[in-house]
Amino acid sequence: MTTPPAPLSYGVLLFPGFEVLDIAGPLECLNTLCSFLPAHTPQPTLSILSRAASATTPDVPLAVTPAYPSSPGPFAFRSAQVYLPTHTLTTAPHIDVLLIPGGLGCGDPAGKMPEEVAYVRKVFPKLKYLFTVCNGSGVAAVAGVLDGHRATSNKAWWQRVAAFGPKTYWVAKARWVESGNVWTCSGVSAGTDGMLAFLERVYKEVDEGLVQRVADSMEYRRETDATDDPFCVLHGAQDVPPIE
Amino acid sequence: MTTPPAPLSYGVLLFPGFEVLDIAGPLECLNTLCSFLPAHTPQPTLSILSRAASATTPDVPLAVTPAYPSSPGPFAFRSAQVYLPTHTLTTAPHIDVLLIPGGLGCGDPAGKMPEEVAYVRKVFPKLKYLFTVCNGSGVAAVAGVLDGHRATSNKAWWQRVAAFGPKTYWVAKARWVESGNVWTCSGVSAGTDGMLAFLERVYKEVDEGLVQRVADSMEYRRETDATDDPFCVLHGAQDVPPIE
Repeated sequence: MTTPPAPLSYGVLLFPGFEVLDIAGPLECLNTLCSFLPAHTPQPTLSILSRAASATTPDVPLAVTPAYPSSPGPFAFRSAQVYLPTHTLTTAPHIDVLLIPGGLGCGDPAGKMPEEVAYVRKVFPKLKYLFTVCNGSGVAAVAGVLDGHRATSNKAWWQRVAAFGPKTYWVAKARWVESGNVWTCSGVSAGTDGMLAFLERVYKEVDEGLVQRVADSMEYRRETDATDDPFCVLHGAQDVPPIE
Repeated sequence: MTTPPAPLSYGVLLFPGFEVLDIAGPLECLNTLCSFLPAHTPQPTLSILSRAASATTPDVPLAVTPAYPSSPGPFAFRSAQVYLPTHTLTTAPHIDVLLIPGGLGCGDPAGKMPEEVAYVRKVFPKLKYLFTVCNGSGVAAVAGVLDGHRATSNKAWWQRVAAFGPKTYWVAKARWVESGNVWTCSGVSAGTDGMLAFLERVYKEVDEGLVQRVADSMEYRRETDATDDPFCVLHGAQDVPPIE
């Protein structure tokens, strides 16, 4: 099997209540990769997408944070972390790889994220790859683009996310899952391991040792075994096959 | 020894060319911690500081990126990642814990970051703790606040950063170093391990198992041994004692 040419455009989907490390881990890998690409290699572009052109924060209204019922309220600490999009969902350029983070904002994609779900459904056929982290796979599932695929998600929200994708085989013991052009990762930190595995796949033709140098530069001890997932055991998560 | 009350205010120092994961790893720990704090515990505040009130990106002019001489130029990929500060260095409120990331922008703190260096020097006596990641310890060293301390930094820039602090004992084999109220971490990913160790120290009185729950929620396999540093070995870094 020949690896197709490396992707040239990445997009990140931000929304209120995204999880910071879900995006920052993979972006750190990509930032570092861009520094290390040979001079003759085209630099990929990055677009940061959100439903509105205004700033987005990882904070989220309490109404959509069912995960932490004992939480004292809106997280002022997160509100100080303000990110600016480069495009809205309607002005977004063509994207080869779409990254969807998870976070407390993903508790009810159909009800709280209809614009994002519609965008994912519309753009998916034109993507080279879809890459999700944590319960971001729930957003993809609600959009229907995980139908017929194997996928994973974070383990604390396991049953809830699996219910979003009744036509998906949910793999419990997985740091990440590759299924055709769809990569889904487990919770938060797993996105970094998943992205390094993804980059190893798609940039192999460019330079064999590139991704190890990226990980070393990040002083990151990467997990290279996709099935080594202690958090599956911790939460007692089990595979959820598709409903016939 | 009694642990003093947990910090109530955190500040992050951003500058052109900061490394994304240096800040995002520790902030992810703090975001998660805030979600888990018992309801009666005061929520800490966060301020994002930069020399100008305008947006900051992890991109950096090529003139200050000596680390990658073969790099093809300004990193357009990084420029898309736009962060907004909450305060400038002159409007910054009181801060208990100051976080300084590293990055390609830290190659010449005295020449390229005089405002940041002056701010660190001025505010240090009022801090409860200083926390640096990667070559951010070089910024602290140039400000003189690491004089007489033990400290570490990332291992790819080892000799260069050590030269910024001739009155500091630079510990090579360290994922992070605690020296009084000064915490310094090794490269990039080490900031996450260092922050979890820091939180364990300062929030111990609040809840014994809190920080492990934070790491588990991040699905993060933390390194709890501060001296387990394979990247020191990789780069052949050795201790640099202070110059008498």
